[in-house]
Amino acid sequence: MAKTLDSLLTVTTPVDLSTYDSRATTGFSGEKADAERQLAAMGEELSDLQEKLFAVGRAGTSQTRVLVVLQGMDTSGKGGIIRHVTGLVDPQGLAITSFKKPTPEELEHDFLWRVERRLPQPGMIGVFDRSHYEDVLIGRVRQLAGPEEIERRYGAINDFEKAFTDSGGILIKCFLHITADDQKERLLARLDDPTKHWKYNPGDLDERMLWDDYQRAYALALERCSTDDAPWHLVPSGRKWYRNWAVGALLTEKLRALELEWPKADYDVEAEKARLAGM
Amino acid sequence: MAKTLDSLLTVTTPVDLSTYDSRATTGFSGEKADAERQLAAMGEELSDLQEKLFAVGRAGTSQTRVLVVLQGMDTSGKGGIIRHVTGLVDPQGLAITSFKKPTPEELEHDFLWRVERRLPQPGMIGVFDRSHYEDVLIGRVRQLAGPEEIERRYGAINDFEKAFTDSGGILIKCFLHITADDQKERLLARLDDPTKHWKYNPGDLDERMLWDDYQRAYALALERCSTDDAPWHLVPSGRKWYRNWAVGALLTEKLRALELEWPKADYDVEAEKARLAGM
Repeated sequence: MAKTLDSLLTVTTPVDLSTYDSRATTGFSGEKADAERQLAAMGEELSDLQEKLFAVGRAGTSQTRVLVVLQGMDTSGKGGIIRHVTGLVDPQGLAITSFKKPTPEELEHDFLWRVERRLPQPGMIGVFDRSHYEDVLIGRVRQLAGPEEIERRYGAINDFEKAFTDSGGILIKCFLHITADDQKERLLARLDDPTKHWKYNPGDLDERMLWDDYQRAYALALERCSTDDAPWHLVPSGRKWYRNWAVGALLTEKLRALELEWPKADYDVEAEKARLAGM
Repeated sequence: MAKTLDSLLTVTTPVDLSTYDSRATTGFSGEKADAERQLAAMGEELSDLQEKLFAVGRAGTSQTRVLVVLQGMDTSGKGGIIRHVTGLVDPQGLAITSFKKPTPEELEHDFLWRVERRLPQPGMIGVFDRSHYEDVLIGRVRQLAGPEEIERRYGAINDFEKAFTDSGGILIKCFLHITADDQKERLLARLDDPTKHWKYNPGDLDERMLWDDYQRAYALALERCSTDDAPWHLVPSGRKWYRNWAVGALLTEKLRALELEWPKADYDVEAEKARLAGM
């Protein structure tokens, strides 16, 4: 039996990011054009699966909900995935949250407070563009919290995610892996294209200067928080077309495995037909 | 100069819904396949326009935001438009709200309270699946408020919408016009298809029994709340392909008219390139 993409992309511990090729095309054979064609075709199935998930949620018969967590350095493609992959399904079934620097109100609470409030409702596909992992990434690198608090957070994240998956949540965590050279190329491309200047922020380079620290923080987060029910996937993201294909395929695989059925009518179909015929 | 679709679809007062053909294809010449092809092609432009709107919003240089209000009887296609038209753009730029029966908390406030909170932020395209108009539609038909309060609401809506458009909001109000026969056909189709049973609710027929009352309430709402800055468009919706094309074309027309420019960099592009080259 062919291995699932889910298992092929799950990180193995201990995590050493330098051993992963950002331009790998794990689980895919073909060229860019093939991947784009396959992704478009996948859109049809994904769209059907999403509608079924939505229907089941609406019927109130299941707590199933999906959450895609996207993490990665600037330019790794979080926005690109939301646009090109989750953009394939009905936007009514999506709940997208882009986590920014916490507000003063958010800082008054535990770091998971703002995240909990954005978890998807039954039937929905939630997408986190950055997430609670920032609190052990920039949190660690910039020392926004003390070492003990950072240490506590890995366990708190595991507990939080377990509560989510135990109650019918499906968690798909994707680390979009690029190298410092990949990022350089993409930042330069932004600077070279006036229609992309708005996406660039000089502060991005301040973070880039801490590249190695971020890689260490990522490796640690992936290692400490990859669990059986909520594994971390490392998605090689040096090639945008593979990255999009891979996340689309992961999502399709997960939704397909739910083997969802259309909800049965909770009313008498024939009686309703008769009633309608007379109106 | 060719008339805009905007002007072609704007209701003229007094409004008599019985004079509008639900199967008209105003402003469009061609067949179903042409409309679907045109809509797909429109997706490219719409997607670019939306990204520019988003960029301008992100840059903080403009308060421009768009709100599409969708109203219509059950099966008129509010969900279909969200899926097939707004689904053409990046979901990150959409803020979709589906208004249901008000919660007890919402009922404690003025009817506009819950609507105000869901207005789109600068750069976003908001979509209302039902809206504040329900408070003068089902509100009137089911007498959920007294006659004086209902009367007051038309003016309150006009003031509310004026504040929105005066502050840079673009309002696109679409009444999806179908006949009772169109609805009967679509409800029967839902009952005939087990994959659509979840979309049907026996309560839908209770509302259908009040068809004429709803038509009167709609005519009144369209008449009282169609203003120069926020006109009501009557979108013939007996043909789904025309309905989707028309709303897509309206949205494209409005966004195009904004003549948005990509935001200029607020940093020194060459200096950033030099800085990046050294990293």
